Amino acid sequence: MADDIFSKFSPLFEIPENLIYLDGNSLGPLPKNASKAISNVTVNEWGKLLIKGWNQSGWMDQPEKLGNNIATLLGAKKGTVTVGDTLSLKVYQSLASALQITSKRGVVLSDDGNFPSDIYIANSLLKQKNLPPVRLVKPEAIEKELIKGDVSILMLTQVDYRTGRVHDIAKLTDIAKQEGIITIWDLAHSIGALCLNVDKDDIDFAVGCTYKYLCGGPGSPAFIYVKPDHIPKIDPEIAGWLGHKFPFKFDLSFFPATDIRKFRIGTPPVIQMAALEAALKIWEKVDMRSFRKQAKKLTSMFINEVEDLELELKLVSPRDPCHRGSQVSFRTRNAYEKMQSLIDNRVIGDYREPDIMRFGFNPLFNNESDVIEAAKRLGLIIKKSSWRNKKYTKRNLVT
Amino acid sequence: MADDIFSKFSPLFEIPENLIYLDGNSLGPLPKNASKAISNVTVNEWGKLLIKGWNQSGWMDQPEKLGNNIATLLGAKKGTVTVGDTLSLKVYQSLASALQITSKRGVVLSDDGNFPSDIYIANSLLKQKNLPPVRLVKPEAIEKELIKGDVSILMLTQVDYRTGRVHDIAKLTDIAKQEGIITIWDLAHSIGALCLNVDKDDIDFAVGCTYKYLCGGPGSPAFIYVKPDHIPKIDPEIAGWLGHKFPFKFDLSFFPATDIRKFRIGTPPVIQMAALEAALKIWEKVDMRSFRKQAKKLTSMFINEVEDLELELKLVSPRDPCHRGSQVSFRTRNAYEKMQSLIDNRVIGDYREPDIMRFGFNPLFNNESDVIEAAKRLGLIIKKSSWRNKKYTKRNLVT
Repeated sequence: MADDIFSKFSPLFEIPENLIYLDGNSLGPLPKNASKAISNVTVNEWGKLLIKGWNQSGWMDQPEKLGNNIATLLGAKKGTVTVGDTLSLKVYQSLASALQITSKRGVVLSDDGNFPSDIYIANSLLKQKNLPPVRLVKPEAIEKELIKGDVSILMLTQVDYRTGRVHDIAKLTDIAKQEGIITIWDLAHSIGALCLNVDKDDIDFAVGCTYKYLCGGPGSPAFIYVKPDHIPKIDPEIAGWLGHKFPFKFDLSFFPATDIRKFRIGTPPVIQMAALEAALKIWEKVDMRSFRKQAKKLTSMFINEVEDLELELKLVSPRDPCHRGSQVSFRTRNAYEKMQSLIDNRVIGDYREPDIMRFGFNPLFNNESDVIEAAKRLGLIIKKSSWRNKKYTKRNLVT
Repeated sequence: MADDIFSKFSPLFEIPENLIYLDGNSLGPLPKNASKAISNVTVNEWGKLLIKGWNQSGWMDQPEKLGNNIATLLGAKKGTVTVGDTLSLKVYQSLASALQITSKRGVVLSDDGNFPSDIYIANSLLKQKNLPPVRLVKPEAIEKELIKGDVSILMLTQVDYRTGRVHDIAKLTDIAKQEGIITIWDLAHSIGALCLNVDKDDIDFAVGCTYKYLCGGPGSPAFIYVKPDHIPKIDPEIAGWLGHKFPFKFDLSFFPATDIRKFRIGTPPVIQMAALEAALKIWEKVDMRSFRKQAKKLTSMFINEVEDLELELKLVSPRDPCHRGSQVSFRTRNAYEKMQSLIDNRVIGDYREPDIMRFGFNPLFNNESDVIEAAKRLGLIIKKSSWRNKKYTKRNLVT
């Protein structure tokens, strides 16, 4: 089988028996080595070294050490990425930094396929600065909007979290450059899914989270990439103590670190970092070109299998796999109930408002048999209307 | 022995054999139940429930659930505290909020005994707003400064991280109130150490971290308390998606939660939260009045034991235990080397620039025998000059 080269990875993850997990784009499963790493950092480092863990176990250097691992996946140079906080904070820091270095007056442009959370955080920053809110257009209108002359910053998420539609980073960044526009790319649904080249594409800022495809664990910290040329020019908007050049001198004045560490804020979450480190060790062994090829194959196969069943599900993901992330989404009535029923039948995908069933595919733990079986179970649920049998109540909707 | 009532707690913590740990004010030791909780959240929740953990294991509600536990320790009402991010962020949020609600024009007042990190973060916010930087005075000058008429916000850390000197919250807050000044108290070295009454004392904002006395683990998240009357008035300065009223509606517009959740930002660090939850279960059983009484006894005893040895250590902590937190600090030449040598002799305290040896005491895992033995080992190190025997190189200084 073509996915043979990936079959060696699935034993590295804990997936409950007979469960098909197609929600790794929301929360990646537990890597077995992460389980060990968490136990080790807890029992042997925190438990035995106590405060000495900061130096002896290298806790203090984790943000940039893991940043370098992430840089590889981003196609970025070493020393350009740091890990910490949450994605919202990293969006905030990147926009605040972009506002400092832009030489152009103009609006921040985004699209309505961006994460709403990125828009919230950006607008809260812009409001503080008495700047107009983010201009939101349709994803397909971005190109035209970029050449209007009144945009100073482009802030986009590459993969639409609902449909999986992929923006062409190289092309849009190139147009932005020609217009003197600073670019911020949210790669939350890209890292560990797509082949990325932030250095070659000359992106200014990139951010993302690590609990989706990367499998860093629930609430695993986020990352920020800053183009090397920009690093010295930026004055940290949120001056956290670990962004200080000498945090342990306890100076009353802030002197920012001269490197990527200036984007650190507070104390790193050591236990989460250990889990992420373990997950990233798996990614070191992944060839992203083969991975992407296999992911395209899985998503295309799932579309075919589901469409063959004629289930009244409307594909909302792009049909061309090159324009699609590692996910497939369908629009349907009673999407929430259908997804819940499917989950009861041990295929986990997720639901997104108002009518989307979303399925994420990660070749590290999903294979072709999973695709066939998942489509089959979905067909049974819908054909037998078994989703009507139970009252499903929407809760927090992190299904 | 008077500390008998606390002897039941020490078996709840992992302390390596023959080690006297007097650095719980920097990083609390591992509670045994936290070790279990971390393993459970990893293996049984993340591993087995995967994405369903958000609802089924209550991950999504942890920030306020743990907030309520912390509220008890703060002497605050339920629904007034949320847990997340890092202390720096929580200082940022509280100052940003204070600036929104103050009706007075004036400066932000603090003292040079505050954490430098609080000053960094505050000044970075004030700079963005084109406001003058924090006015720093000596701790003893705060009272006089408050009545000058030109202060709008008082931002203090109750316990000086170097000396252990304690500010009188009730008194200073009372003066501030009379002057129409908003108060922000950093309780990082107070929570789990002192008896607190934020509600009774009518504090406006309180923040703190949970990895010190509370033993939540390295990089455990911070907390913010907001006086209930203020909550509805504040527009979140950093509008994070989990501060949205309905985060999973994925609205493109931000509508803040109407309660304390509006101070949430991003996805909570689930594994760290589980560790903190376990630690807080121990604190539920602690009577803080007896705890404080015992802590005063231990610190006084340590001072006496050390001073009896005539070691050329100058006490820099207040001699009156009522004015002293749960720590004792001495000033001495070669403090760094002496502390390193003491650590080699299995008594862990810490060093603070430029010449301070700092010892923290937590009756949950430190008893009177520890005090006597620690002083004895310190005496031996210094008298034998054994700290000269080895070349100690200052590293990150999280000793």
